[in-house]
Parts: sequence; C-alpha cells; structure tokens
Amino acid sequence: MEINGVEIEDTFAEGFPIKIARVLITAISQRWAVSAAQEATGFGTSVIGCPAEAGIECIVPADQTPDGRPGVYIQICNMGYKNLEMSLLNRIGQCVLTAPTTAVFNGLPEAEKQFDTGKKLGYFGDGHQCDIDLKGRTMCKIPLMEGDFLTEHFFGAVDGIAGGNFYIEAQNQAAALTAAEVAVDEIAKRKGTITPFPGGVVASGSKVGSKYKFLKASTNASFCPSLREDGTCTLPEEVSSVYEIVINGVSREVIEEAMKAGIEAACTVPGVLRISAGNFGGKLGPHHFHLHKILQ
Amino acid sequence: MEINGVEIEDTFAEGFPIKIARVLITAISQRWAVSAAQEATGFGTSVIGCPAEAGIECIVPADQTPDGRPGVYIQICNMGYKNLEMSLLNRIGQCVLTAPTTAVFNGLPEAEKQFDTGKKLGYFGDGHQCDIDLKGRTMCKIPLMEGDFLTEHFFGAVDGIAGGNFYIEAQNQAAALTAAEVAVDEIAKRKGTITPFPGGVVASGSKVGSKYKFLKASTNASFCPSLREDGTCTLPEEVSSVYEIVINGVSREVIEEAMKAGIEAACTVPGVLRISAGNFGGKLGPHHFHLHKILQ
Amino acid sequence: MEINGVEIEDTFAEGFPIKIARVLITAISQRWAVSAAQEATGFGTSVIGCPAEAGIECIVPADQTPDGRPGVYIQICNMGYKNLEMSLLNRIGQCVLTAPTTAVFNGLPEAEKQFDTGKKLGYFGDGHQCDIDLKGRTMCKIPLMEGDFLTEHFFGAVDGIAGGNFYIEAQNQAAALTAAEVAVDEIAKRKGTITPFPGGVVASGSKVGSKYKFLKASTNASFCPSLREDGTCTLPEEVSSVYEIVINGVSREVIEEAMKAGIEAACTVPGVLRISAGNFGGKLGPHHFHLHKILQ
Amino acid sequence: MEINGVEIEDTFAEGFPIKIARVLITAISQRWAVSAAQEATGFGTSVIGCPAEAGIECIVPADQTPDGRPGVYIQICNMGYKNLEMSLLNRIGQCVLTAPTTAVFNGLPEAEKQFDTGKKLGYFGDGHQCDIDLKGRTMCKIPLMEGDFLTEHFFGAVDGIAGGNFYIEAQNQAAALTAAEVAVDEIAKRKGTITPFPGGVVASGSKVGSKYKFLKASTNASFCPSLREDGTCTLPEEVSSVYEIVINGVSREVIEEAMKAGIEAACTVPGVLRISAGNFGGKLGPHHFHLHKILQ
Repeated sequence: MEINGVEIEDTFAEGFPIKIARVLITAISQRWAVSAAQEATGFGTSVIGCPAEAGIECIVPADQTPDGRPGVYIQICNMGYKNLEMSLLNRIGQCVLTAPTTAVFNGLPEAEKQFDTGKKLGYFGDGHQCDIDLKGRTMCKIPLMEGDFLTEHFFGAVDGIAGGNFYIEAQNQAAALTAAEVAVDEIAKRKGTITPFPGGVVASGSKVGSKYKFLKASTNASFCPSLREDGTCTLPEEVSSVYEIVINGVSREVIEEAMKAGIEAACTVPGVLRISAGNFGGKLGPHHFHLHKILQ
Repeated sequence: MEINGVEIEDTFAEGFPIKIARVLITAISQRWAVSAAQEATGFGTSVIGCPAEAGIECIVPADQTPDGRPGVYIQICNMGYKNLEMSLLNRIGQCVLTAPTTAVFNGLPEAEKQFDTGKKLGYFGDGHQCDIDLKGRTMCKIPLMEGDFLTEHFFGAVDGIAGGNFYIEAQNQAAALTAAEVAVDEIAKRKGTITPFPGGVVASGSKVGSKYKFLKASTNASFCPSLREDGTCTLPEEVSSVYEIVINGVSREVIEEAMKAGIEAACTVPGVLRISAGNFGGKLGPHHFHLHKILQ
Repeated sequence: MEINGVEIEDTFAEGFPIKIARVLITAISQRWAVSAAQEATGFGTSVIGCPAEAGIECIVPADQTPDGRPGVYIQICNMGYKNLEMSLLNRIGQCVLTAPTTAVFNGLPEAEKQFDTGKKLGYFGDGHQCDIDLKGRTMCKIPLMEGDFLTEHFFGAVDGIAGGNFYIEAQNQAAALTAAEVAVDEIAKRKGTITPFPGGVVASGSKVGSKYKFLKASTNASFCPSLREDGTCTLPEEVSSVYEIVINGVSREVIEEAMKAGIEAACTVPGVLRISAGNFGGKLGPHHFHLHKILQ
Repeated sequence: MEINGVEIEDTFAEGFPIKIARVLITAISQRWAVSAAQEATGFGTSVIGCPAEAGIECIVPADQTPDGRPGVYIQICNMGYKNLEMSLLNRIGQCVLTAPTTAVFNGLPEAEKQFDTGKKLGYFGDGHQCDIDLKGRTMCKIPLMEGDFLTEHFFGAVDGIAGGNFYIEAQNQAAALTAAEVAVDEIAKRKGTITPFPGGVVASGSKVGSKYKFLKASTNASFCPSLREDGTCTLPEEVSSVYEIVINGVSREVIEEAMKAGIEAACTVPGVLRISAGNFGGKLGPHHFHLHKILQ
C-alpha cells in the first residue's frame, strides 16, 4: 500500500486501556486558555515516569462553550480511577485554578463515572466559596485575587485507549520531524484524542523491558538508525530518522480517525519514505489498529 | 513611592529556601527547544500540589551553547536534594529525552552539588549507550529512533530561593493581566530566574493555612475584590483585580533584578493602580525583598 | 439593548463596495502557510494609503485543500478590478511564489470574474514552466531553487463589501484591546471575512475629511477620550479607550455573522462598557449594518 | 572549507546599495509591538515588485526603549531617498499609527539624512495634535480613539546594503527549510540587519534578466533541482532543494556578522550538504561578501 508514493507497512499499532478525564478550560482569550492547558498537561507524556498522561485535545470557538468565552479541551489519563482522581484534583487545582481568568467545565457530562473534583477545589475559598447555576450547570464560585473562579462540581471520566500510534520513517531528521509536526497539527483539529508527548512527537520509541532488570522500557533498538553496523537496526538503508506519534483517545473510532488524518498529512512531506507502527506482538494491549484497514 | 504614577506600597515579598537544578536544552531549532522545555516544566507551579516547581528561565542564541544549536535554560526546584534528584531524572527522562532533536547540558557546572542523572538516563540505551567527549564535557550518547540523544553525565544544583513575588493591582482584570504579561516577558529576558505559574502569572494568591484543617493554603481573602461587602477585602475601592508574579531564582540578586524589571514594566500599563507584595509576616521564609529598596 | 451587561448602541456600521480576490495558499506546514499569508497581506490596512486592503481569512485543515496540505485563505481587496489584478499579481508573485513550500489555488473558482494571474506568474520560469493537472485544476508548474512551485491559472474575484465595523468602548486600553483580540480571534474562525488592520484591530478610527485640504481622513475626534475638556469628545465619562474592528467580506451575510460573533465575544471581557459602530450618516457607503438587527 | 561536515563553496554574495530607514516601535506588550511591525513590513520582499523592502530587525527589552515599553526595530528600504520617504510615511501612517497602543521613535537619530515624517503624520490629528518632550526627544502627540499616539518628529536614514545572501543546499526540502529557519532565528537576535522575504526565507532565488523582454528577473535555473535532465541544473546530484537567505543591513559589518551567524547555525542541521551564495559576476552590485573570508 502506498499514499503519495510513501509505503504503508502492513502492520498494526497496539494500544492498551486507560482511564481518561476530559476538562473544558475557558479563559478571557484563546491565548490564556491555551496557556493554562499547557501547564495543566505538562510533565504528562507517559505513565512510566510521569504522574499522568495528559494533553491538549482541541480548541473550541467561544460560541461552543457554556460561558461564551474561548475554550480548550484537555484530557488527563491514568491507570485506574483512583490515580486519575488525584491527577485531576492536583492538575486543575495547581495549574488551572491558579491560571489567569480561567473557568473549568465537565468535558464528559454524560459519562457514568463522575468525580466531585470541583466541590473539593471549593475548599480553597476558605468558606467564602458558594454554588451558582450557569445554564443548568452547578458551579462552585471561589473568590480569588484576580476575581472569581468558576468550576463545575463534577468531571466525568471514561475507559479510553492509550498507545494508538504510527511511525514516520524518513530520509533525515528534518523531514521526519516536519511530517510529525504536520501530522500533530491535523490531529489537533479533531475532537476526542490527544498526542501527549512533547509537541505531540516521540523521539525515543521504546520496547517493553530491558537488559537491566530495574528498567521497564528501553530504546527500540531495531528501529535505531545508528545501530546498523552490527545488524541491530532493521530499518531500510535509506531511512535515517524515525518519529513516533502516540495517540490517546476516548474511543477506538476517534483514534482511527486521528491516525488516518495524521498519516495522510505526513505523507505529503518530501523525504518521508515509509509509515509503520509500534506493537509488542500483542503482549502490551488488546487494542490493535491495522494501518491498511484504517487507511482504506 | 510612585513609578509612572503607580503607587508602590512600602511592603516586602517573603521568599523561602529551595533547591534548584538548572538544565540547558538544545534542539534543531529554538521552537523545538522551547517545546521540550514546556513539557519538562509543566505541572510545576507549586510544591504544595505539584511534584516540583519548574519553569523556563531564558532562551540563548546558538553561539552560546556547547553544540552550536539554539538553547533554552530551564530550572527544576524542589524541597531537599533527594526530591530534586528524582524530579530531574523523571522530567528529563520523560520529557526531554523523548522530545524531538534535543540534547541536554549541565546548567550549573560549577555548583558543588552534582547529580549523575545523565549516567542514569544512559541505561535507556539498553547497552547500546556509550560516552563521548563534546568540547571537554563528558556526554552519554543514547541511540534513539530519531537518531542519537546526547546528555551530559552530571547536572548541578544549588540552594536557591522560591517565592520572590509582587502583586499588580489594577482597575480591571484585563489591565492587571496585560501588566502581568509584560512583566513576565521582561523577566524572561534575564538569566537566573523563573516564573513557575501558568504563563508566569498567579491568579489565586494564597495565605498560609485555612479554616479547613486538611488544607495547607487558602485564598488570600483580604486581597479578593469580590469579598468587599463584609469588609474581608482590604484593597482600595478602585482595585477590582490583582495578579501575583512569583519568582524563583538561583540567588537573591537575580530575584531582585527580576522584580525590578517586572515591576517597572508593569507600571507602564494604563489601569495599573498599585504594586504590592506577598508576605506572611515573616512566618514563611527568611528571605525578605523590600519593594522600596529594590526599586531605588 | 444589552449583552452580558454591556450596552449595545442603537446605531449602524456603514460599508462600501470593494472588489475582492480570494486565494488559497497551502504549504508544507500550517506555520509556513501562515508565514506566506502574513507577508502577502501586509501593508494592506486601507486603500487610503496602502496599495490594497488584505488579510488572512481563515486556516483550513489539510483534508480540505486540493493538495492535501494545510492551507490558509487570504483576501486581497481593491477599488476596481484593474487595481485588484495588479495587486494580486504583485502580492502573489513577490510574497507567495517567493515563500517556502507554497502552492496557490483559486479561492473563488465559481466567480464570474477570473484573472489569469497564475499564467502570468509562469513566465518567471523563463521557459521551463509547464502546465499540469491537479484533480481537475489546471496548474502552472514553475521550477524554483527549492523545487517546483504550483499555481492555478485563474483566480476569481467578486463584488464584496469593505468597512463593516464595530467599536469597543471600555474602561481602559487593556480591557478594550483584550476584547478586540478576542473578537478578532472569533472572526478568524469563520469563513468569508478578513479584519485587515494590524492584528485585526484599528487604534485610530477616522472621520471622512479634515480641516487640512490635502487630507482625505482624520482622527474621529468625537470618540477621542483625551479631547474631553473642550467638549469635542462625546463619549460617556467612564470610557477611556475605544478600538474599532473593521471587517471586509465577500457578502453581506458573512459580515453580519462576523460582527455578531465578534461583538458577543467582546462582551465577555470585564471592563467593556459599550459597543457602538462607525458610520458617516450614509455619506460613505450604501451598506448599512444595524447592530440591533444583527444581534437579534 | 567545511563547517560541521558541510562544504562551504568558495564564492561570494553580491549586494547593491539601498537607502534604509530604521524605526523603533514600542507598544503595551511585545506581542502588540511585533503585530504592528509585521503589518508595517509586509508586502516588502523585493523592490522588483513591492513598493519597498522591509523587515523586523530585532526585539528590544523594555529598559532599552525611551518610553520603558517593549520595542521592535524595523527597517524600511528603497531605491532613492524620495521613494523611501514616501514608503516611511505610508507604512507608519497606515500600519503603525493604526496599530493598537504603539509609539514610534527614530531608529537612526545620528544619521545625516532625517525625514520629518512624524510632523506630517501629526496632521491626522486634525488640529488637535501638539508637541511634547519625552526625555529630550520632540514627539508629536495625536489624539486617537484608543488614547494618544506619540511619534517622534524625525526619522533617520542611511546608505545601506541590500542583497547580502547565502544559499542552503540540502538533501530535501525539509532539511533545507529547517536550516533556513534556524539561520533566520539567529540573524534576528542581532542588530542592524533584516531578512525581508517571507519568514526570512527565499524559495525562488533569481537571476537577472529573462528570455521574456518584459521580465527583469527569472528563476535561477542552474540551481533548480527539477531541471536536471537537460543539464540546466548544475547542483550536486544529492542536492534536491535550495533556500536563499537574503540580508539587508545598515553596514557591511552587520551583514557579515549576520551571514556568519546564519551559516554556522544552518550547518548544525542534518541533511544540509553545502553552503553557497548568489552573485551575478559583479553585474548587479559593488558589495561582495566572500564566504571563506567571512567564516574565517
């Protein structure tokens, strides 16, 4: 299979289950909503070493938010609802309540699982907090130095999928990275998914396990272009750099759409040679995304 | 005291000791260096609820970095060297090693305290890592899917100061926030300090303690403009919004310079009425920054 | 009439006829498409002193462009088709053909009026240019140092409207400007209109004519807050700054939608006191946009 | 000669004399100063088809400007002082006076040639303008809807140089473009020069003349990678994309420094194969910049 002259390998991405909370942040301007979202979703690439996985999902226009201000949806992901609840409380409490002009709304109001994070945040008001109604939503109003902060009482969470992914193999680093940037930009225009790594891109795709017992993951040696001499690297000769795009999402469908949009966009960049994907032979997770099926 | 017609209150900011590590991140372009730095310093506003305090210190031109590429200095701060070492390992390992095209260098090579974080990161290479020399610096080279990642073996840390601050009191939120943005921009052009909150700005200045026993900090009620009716708020009548700029730095001097630059810039914005600062009567920390002295 | 507590004056904006060409620029990434678009639409605020009026209309995802790459629509406006044709040739030739990785497509393929600008640009190929077909569109391929540049042969233009507008009156400059930024951001998310002034905002609203015979337009003195002492300024006492948003568009409908979205967004910003609009009592143009009708 | 493994061709760039005016724009924030500067310097790549050449020179901190606000230096260039004076009046009048919160200062106060552009702009005030002193500078104060606009009376201009340049030849477009971006970023950190093309980069390097008599310049065919079959292209086989960085500056020295910084930065990007430069055998201009001399 080829797109725009780029080979699509006949392989699959392997995802695993994760719990995902979704929060809508609004602010006085899009710029400040994004600023809060960046802080709240930072240090959030992989649960292997970060306290959560997190990212910006998409920007929404002012007329699609409850308070008529520009908005940004973020996702916070963790293994198990208990960890997720703690992540939600700390990240909203430390990075959104503290951010200029923000308000926060439940991004999954119809989910079965609902955390009362907003109610808990209210205690920061030291007794001055109170409840108000905003177009049918119960909000806690907390007096701050900047004015009042509004947070919805509840935030929903669902069983989502982490680790959707594809690889961009290219003639050199700049081509692979430009394609990765373009792919991430297009994914960011769609709802339901995040690309939690820095700038949406993974430089250091990994395999499960390592020769060191204390390490759960290590470099994906067979895809490392500088390990060619001893035959460790099995990449085609002309590939000298590979980036991975990792995608988390609230459903299988949104991940498939994001993979399709990202791959098609990546294939327009000169110097991209092949698209592949990362899997662990089924050892890691039950969710398999076959490239050829998704791109039909 | 007045600057540009803005009253400078005769008060002081109260800082407290913190341990600070400083890392230089370089990348293929300034944009990608900043992207890595943002991820690595996210979820890092306050040690009250974040695993560390962290921020971007400044951008440096390509001719001022060891590998001739554009660079960004970041600071990671924590209470005690043990916590700091863990923060450093996780944040560099998860957010910079994983970021496209980055290399990392010791930002405090002359500090007495040095962590061997780079050596530890090397294990990700699964045996394929090796040491190289880059202009007198010992670097670990780790093969990745994108190419090779370089990290210096050691990263220095020092006894620094957290909680340098000033308040911007204004006629309304937009004026206070514009002044805060301008102040943060000017501080970012100087070396040695970070403003760890979202976009560099704190919307929710706090006091130590709370009426709820489980809460260490709560809203600074006497500076909350919406708590005027019962006399809780003691702000001047015409002030309707207050932002705080919190500054961490590697020395008293750099914090004083940052406060001076930030306050002077803030005072150029129409609608700013008064500059104040946050202290806890000496209860929190030994480092006092008197506004009138700094601005002489 | 009030929105969110902000008074909407019972007045109207007065627009005038202008010719508008619309061009789709695609590039290797959204960032580079925007970069070309900024250069091509610069020095383009008002036909009073600029060679054309021009601006970025909106960004489109890669799957909505003929070559599957990220795109940006721009508009170039002038008085009369002859001037417009010259503007189109110079701005595309000097600012888009010269910009990295771009291609240009007809943004109004169904318009009656069509300029053969792409054919003319072809001569830059010095005989090496040739025609190709791209999904039914006839494109001229011009060999460049970066690779090949593609331009569609024809670019359509229509009778549009310039000078749609509204005023944001606020307590101070920062509030008015923040509201203006928010309004412009929301307008930019819609198709069909541009806001040609710097950052989309006019600081210097003008009246027709002047006491100096050589000047066609001069400061709108009755809206200048600093001219209160002698009664020249007729603004409410509490207004100290006013920004105007000027909107050009391909039809009356798109301007009305843009005005509605912009005004509603502006009214969410604290410190905004009143929305008004600029007209010249019908002297300037036949297109009247009554605020109360648009905001019904 | 080689830098970082990249060949530096033994050739020279050929510049020509141009008149350059330099203006300092300040604004309420760096963002708005840049916004005004972008509008004022747009449609300004080459005097062949633009009414002037123009660009952003550098950003300066608030403590280095006369009014203590963030600033941006721009340059406007034209053939002959008469054309330049007209460009200055139109671009400042239409794109900076109209831009939110700006003030403008003379960027070359010690030049012999001084235009009274600020005095002329004053007439927009329709008789309400007046002169004030700002730290020894005579400024015209013009009442606007946003508040008062300040412009210095005079703006200086000098005999400068246009057309300083170098070529980046690379394995593919993404590598060449990434290197170009990095080079432009580093040049922008230095004073005295501009890179007037879109994003600082030229995609379409040209030769003087053409087979069509009506065309003064045409594609530089011998550097066009797609013209290899008939031997027109004389680039090395492995080069598939070339970008040119064009530099204007107020003196020979600043252009040499900019070329050096830009070339050295470009040579850090993987996939860059050779640096060259554009000249016309001495036909175009008297200013020759030999790469090997500059990079010594």
